[in-house]
Amino acid sequence: METITIKDIAKALNLSTSTVSRALRNSYEINPETKRLVMEYAEKMNYRPNPIALSLKDSKSRAIGVIIPEIANYFFSQLINGIESIAYNLGYHVVIFQSHESFERELANTHYLVSRKVDGLLVSLSSLTTDINHFEELMEKGMPIVFFDRVPQTDNTHKIIADNFEGSYKATAHLIETGKRRIAHITSPRYLSITSERLGGYRKALEDHGIVYDESYVKYCHHGGMVTSENEEAVQQLLDMPEPPDAIFAASDRLTTGCMAVLVKNKIRIPQEIGMIGFTNIAVAQLFNPPLSAVVQPALDMGQQATELLIQLIENPKRVSGFETRCLQTRLDIRQSTTGEIKEEI
Amino acid sequence: METITIKDIAKALNLSTSTVSRALRNSYEINPETKRLVMEYAEKMNYRPNPIALSLKDSKSRAIGVIIPEIANYFFSQLINGIESIAYNLGYHVVIFQSHESFERELANTHYLVSRKVDGLLVSLSSLTTDINHFEELMEKGMPIVFFDRVPQTDNTHKIIADNFEGSYKATAHLIETGKRRIAHITSPRYLSITSERLGGYRKALEDHGIVYDESYVKYCHHGGMVTSENEEAVQQLLDMPEPPDAIFAASDRLTTGCMAVLVKNKIRIPQEIGMIGFTNIAVAQLFNPPLSAVVQPALDMGQQATELLIQLIENPKRVSGFETRCLQTRLDIRQSTTGEIKEEI
Repeated sequence: METITIKDIAKALNLSTSTVSRALRNSYEINPETKRLVMEYAEKMNYRPNPIALSLKDSKSRAIGVIIPEIANYFFSQLINGIESIAYNLGYHVVIFQSHESFERELANTHYLVSRKVDGLLVSLSSLTTDINHFEELMEKGMPIVFFDRVPQTDNTHKIIADNFEGSYKATAHLIETGKRRIAHITSPRYLSITSERLGGYRKALEDHGIVYDESYVKYCHHGGMVTSENEEAVQQLLDMPEPPDAIFAASDRLTTGCMAVLVKNKIRIPQEIGMIGFTNIAVAQLFNPPLSAVVQPALDMGQQATELLIQLIENPKRVSGFETRCLQTRLDIRQSTTGEIKEEI
Repeated sequence: METITIKDIAKALNLSTSTVSRALRNSYEINPETKRLVMEYAEKMNYRPNPIALSLKDSKSRAIGVIIPEIANYFFSQLINGIESIAYNLGYHVVIFQSHESFERELANTHYLVSRKVDGLLVSLSSLTTDINHFEELMEKGMPIVFFDRVPQTDNTHKIIADNFEGSYKATAHLIETGKRRIAHITSPRYLSITSERLGGYRKALEDHGIVYDESYVKYCHHGGMVTSENEEAVQQLLDMPEPPDAIFAASDRLTTGCMAVLVKNKIRIPQEIGMIGFTNIAVAQLFNPPLSAVVQPALDMGQQATELLIQLIENPKRVSGFETRCLQTRLDIRQSTTGEIKEEI
């Protein structure tokens, strides 16, 4: 069994052992870039702090609870890898729960995690969560919680989000630049933060390019695409319109692949008949036919930053002077599903 | 908040409330088909037993720990959905941990789960696990453990596997039927159960069709494809052979998509130059270019059956007269990556 020590890390990165040690303890004295460097190297080399020594030091359970809608989703699974890369190196276990987009399960998961005395929670709300009393009560009792991606309106804690407005703006503007005019938007339930942020960017891009916003081109999927029929119905309704869309911008991993599957099934030529772009972190987008254009979120980074903020709240609650909402940049990956440079049928 | 009762379930399925109640308690008096029907309906309708009432009844923690190599993998994430569909309806929480294909992490996860007093474990071994003393010791102390997919040699507990031999046999025979002769096999580390089972089916199919088994066409990926470079090297070595393969059969989710990505990057025509089939549960295989042929494992069913067996061990340890290894059938999905009916370039 290979083991690596703080000394090894210091040598490899040309840092002092004390810097590495403080970086691994997430000390505020070390700058974030150095911390990231140390953490990533430690992660890569499978460095593991001694949990027994750590648990002797304090009365914490040294576990973080994570509640996400689902794990069979590239965005969330990359995000979890970000969470684990930081948590594990700081000596925290990560306990993962799925809400399956159900408010009741989110509630049950929360109660369970609290009963098991986790030190803090990282949460992305289910698509059916409209009431966050269960989290508000816990925060009032002093439980550190950091929200990411689908965040509530509360100002009582840190939040990490992608710049959904800008990502959507770029995707929509790109579709317009490829000559599309009737751009549909398939998205999550109306009351989710990501829905309104993404809808806002879509709408602004249309308006800035002189295209009138038409609500009939916007479809909300109550279960965020987890129920296949819902996704299929939304696309079918669009195809059945007197003036069907000439492009579709889908707002999440599930909605994007689901929507593309319906277009393929209907033998619709992408992008000639309908251009297609999605908000997705799917790792195999370039293997699709045609390769899929996508707004990619910095999932790993979101997970890492959320975890850093949570562990600060857990370990140095007195150092926290105010709460922040960090908004990270998205990336636009342009491929043939919008540009049209695809193989033609004979 | 909608709530559903046992009475509602009984009415919908035309069963007695006592049958439903016993099915939800996983009673041995109810036949497995009826149980499955009740569980799936309860799952669909979000039925939730009252956990407070349940925990008053016994001293169990009512939590099951799951240790899998990684969640960013369709096979494992479908399997987890199977686990949760049964566990949740029987009033158990499911605590998910990733080993990231690391023996050390698997060990750390196991220690943590035991320290948190879970009632039992569901485990698929990491690709670097050659020693299972940590599990043997726990089983000796009476901790119920059920293994699935990557299982150890031990006879001390239940195991659920897919029929890997038969799945591989079918995939290889199918490639031979499409006219391929130099069939490469990219697989996981040598000592994993799934590796030898899949290699066995591949080898037998070659021999039954009069093709000599050639070890130079078999590549083992130590990290099961989690390290991209490893996968790329394996494919590159095959392409650089004096007689490169005319087909590749990849043995897991990661290896399959990774292998296909290398072929696409090298502009290799699939299947004309190299036919491609994988062992994968990826949900978007039909969106690939070309659509990907695949051996699909009954992941949901594997998760459900493993959980049923584990909960039997937890709740009725005295009823267990012996341990079984259940071997479930795979399915062969034939698509254009092997049959060649693809769009041609102009």
